[in-house]
Amino acid sequence: MEKFETTILGCGSATPGLKHFTSSQVLNIREKLFMIDCGEGTQIQMRRSKIAFGKLNHIFISHLHGDHCFGLLGIVSSFGLLGRTSPLFVHAPADMWKILKPELDFYCQGMEYHVEFCGFNPKESSVIYDDKSLFVETIPLKHRIPTAGFLFREKPLPDHLDRASADFYGVPQWDYNRIKNGGDFVTADGRTIPHSMLTKPAGTPRSYAYCCDTEYNPAMIEQISGVTTIYHDCTYSKADSERAKKHFHSTAEEAARTAVAAGAKSLILGHFSARYNNEEILLNEAKQIFKNSYLAKENATFCVE
Amino acid sequence: MEKFETTILGCGSATPGLKHFTSSQVLNIREKLFMIDCGEGTQIQMRRSKIAFGKLNHIFISHLHGDHCFGLLGIVSSFGLLGRTSPLFVHAPADMWKILKPELDFYCQGMEYHVEFCGFNPKESSVIYDDKSLFVETIPLKHRIPTAGFLFREKPLPDHLDRASADFYGVPQWDYNRIKNGGDFVTADGRTIPHSMLTKPAGTPRSYAYCCDTEYNPAMIEQISGVTTIYHDCTYSKADSERAKKHFHSTAEEAARTAVAAGAKSLILGHFSARYNNEEILLNEAKQIFKNSYLAKENATFCVE
Repeated sequence: MEKFETTILGCGSATPGLKHFTSSQVLNIREKLFMIDCGEGTQIQMRRSKIAFGKLNHIFISHLHGDHCFGLLGIVSSFGLLGRTSPLFVHAPADMWKILKPELDFYCQGMEYHVEFCGFNPKESSVIYDDKSLFVETIPLKHRIPTAGFLFREKPLPDHLDRASADFYGVPQWDYNRIKNGGDFVTADGRTIPHSMLTKPAGTPRSYAYCCDTEYNPAMIEQISGVTTIYHDCTYSKADSERAKKHFHSTAEEAARTAVAAGAKSLILGHFSARYNNEEILLNEAKQIFKNSYLAKENATFCVE
Repeated sequence: MEKFETTILGCGSATPGLKHFTSSQVLNIREKLFMIDCGEGTQIQMRRSKIAFGKLNHIFISHLHGDHCFGLLGIVSSFGLLGRTSPLFVHAPADMWKILKPELDFYCQGMEYHVEFCGFNPKESSVIYDDKSLFVETIPLKHRIPTAGFLFREKPLPDHLDRASADFYGVPQWDYNRIKNGGDFVTADGRTIPHSMLTKPAGTPRSYAYCCDTEYNPAMIEQISGVTTIYHDCTYSKADSERAKKHFHSTAEEAARTAVAAGAKSLILGHFSARYNNEEILLNEAKQIFKNSYLAKENATFCVE
């Protein structure tokens, strides 16, 4: 199966510290890289995870709190110093351009590449990226300021051609695509060979929902229903649920309930508060509700499958 | 002797990587902390070096290249999140306010403390900080953009009172300060006890010159003459001296020649290019000219004495 995985660069909340960097991760979907969020130090973490700078063309910013975007200017500037020429697309709440534009004008004059800013409205769901095999939708979340999650969804793939069967019935190469996309084949002597005898079914499209930062948000369940993997805000344990509400974050239990309701296959917990010496407490709370829960960890890679 | 030391938080150039953070260091002068430069990740390095956030009240920025200031907004923001109430003074080229002000307005609304911006003109030498025991002067450097070094200089101290001698001659406590500052003492029976019999001389005032980023800059020698310790741009080895010139940086030899000309006691080499796997080559070049040369290193502390 082609690659669909996420590498966590930072999964702490609020301020970067000795245990965690602040939010950032890089999705590798069929060798295309997509960064989500970009806290301070993200470029250092990219090096640590051996993520090729030159392969990153799209950065998605969920909201305009510093722990999700203070590393962006550094990355943009470093790319310039390292001689990048291809454009970098920054997808972020439209308001960000009000400050990113003057920052680029001030600090990043004379770079040989261009930053293409693609603003979106975090309060509504819309498709903000679309290529031949993938699209990305925003997911409105519930946080102190307008915040979007991101749903990365593979497009349905054509079925795989069964080469042995195709050769046996004499399917010419120029007809492969039609067959893979559902066509039957008529042989020279007039027999109809049905599509199902010439192909093997493609896998189910995979998907990944990044839902951070947010308080418990049942309103998004419909949109992410059937998602393969969720990365969810898990800032607090249930003992701190009042604090979670106050700060518009989620508990481990709420993250797990979301995964159950969405019918997800797996759940990655992240955005940890610094108050827990041992995050196993969060993992255990989540696992009691949703077994396939995992703790995010800096420089760890999780497969979406 | 009271503390006068510098802790290196970052000593790499251009972009932060696996080997070095970008420029930042914290001087501890008699338990007052002064940060010089603030590259990305500086707040993480402060934690690593166990530098108390609450004790840092002054940050000095040498110039407006990202590797010297992209960590500032993160520190300012984190201080706010951590409940700081006392003002933070940022001393920087006056132009910085054009971008720092909108950044603070955008990202740091509602903080309980105030950022006091103290702009200076990096093209001229002036005293930009002055307290009862210390002053800080800017040093005009030669770099691609206007850049200032910083000279931290202790004020001459009053002599130390020799308590045994003072008690023997019956000096009353209220008279101590006058004696320490040069006064003689007249006893009840009319004898004059000279100042020198009642005191021990204070040490020579110490000083620290931060000279980075700069190409070889003999014009500053007069200003830093007699300095205790110099931290100097040492981006390149002599084999890359053409490159040093082109990028307005110094070689190890040039740093060492500066230390000799200024009559310094010690030299800390920093701002290393990423091109050297082993920076000993830079140290060896410097030591051939100035023996008391040291390589800067993240989280290492150097005494100024």
